[in-house]
Amino acid sequence: MTETAAQLKQLLRERSVAALGTLHAGEPYVSMVPYAIAHDASGLLIHVSGLASHTRDMRADSRVSLLVVQEEGGETSALALPRVSIQGTAIEVASDSPDLPGFRAAYLERFPEASQMFGFADFSLFKIQPESVRFVAGFAQAHTFSAESFSRLLAG
Amino acid sequence: MTETAAQLKQLLRERSVAALGTLHAGEPYVSMVPYAIAHDASGLLIHVSGLASHTRDMRADSRVSLLVVQEEGGETSALALPRVSIQGTAIEVASDSPDLPGFRAAYLERFPEASQMFGFADFSLFKIQPESVRFVAGFAQAHTFSAESFSRLLAG
Repeated sequence: MTETAAQLKQLLRERSVAALGTLHAGEPYVSMVPYAIAHDASGLLIHVSGLASHTRDMRADSRVSLLVVQEEGGETSALALPRVSIQGTAIEVASDSPDLPGFRAAYLERFPEASQMFGFADFSLFKIQPESVRFVAGFAQAHTFSAESFSRLLAG
Repeated sequence: MTETAAQLKQLLRERSVAALGTLHAGEPYVSMVPYAIAHDASGLLIHVSGLASHTRDMRADSRVSLLVVQEEGGETSALALPRVSIQGTAIEVASDSPDLPGFRAAYLERFPEASQMFGFADFSLFKIQPESVRFVAGFAQAHTFSAESFSRLLAG
């Protein structure tokens, strides 16, 4: 793995929440989502309520964008914080999907306090399947990853 | 000011960066932006490069969404972090606008390291003028603010 890829993977492991962009009646809408990395490296996992706007948005149009930003307040200027924007497709994981047990375990490993919510009928897991990834590691340090190279990074 | 409004104002003051959602060729696109509060409480200020995707997006379609999330890692579960989503309009501040000096001063008070960038011809200030605001203060604690009540909160 390149140094840049390792830096991006560390960012995704260190942080717990992302900003999710959805299309809300044609407008951009950004909300917060906790996320986990899928155990099969196929994408990022979010667990959302059917009552929430972003869930209705994803069901109406699966195109999403996910932003993860390094923590503020260290030595790095707010203007140069490492961050990654992931353009992708939100795929709802059906309750009878063979993928569900593995995805649920990956999510609960990160967020054990969410276990109760897996018993609620109106909550669903979605996988954000990446299509293109833009990682800004700092001032004038932008890198692009294809879906394939990003998946290798998640797996590595 | 209500306790909820005070809590929201504190969040906006404590944090320095937001997630900006724009429409990118019809898709949602989320990127990071440092932000300041306009001195006249009319909105939030961002300073962006004309070379950046989000700037081209805002010039093509001014509808935006801005998310600010409380810091991770304290006693609050990642699932319940206080956060605010602001739906609004991105208005580019012209170089001869009478508002520019005051907005620039408000931005530089927060980010003095950005002063050099105000000398670059391809950077612009945009004001995000709020239209509706949704503040989630924790589990099952969602509050909505109108543009008017949010402006009073910023001014208060």
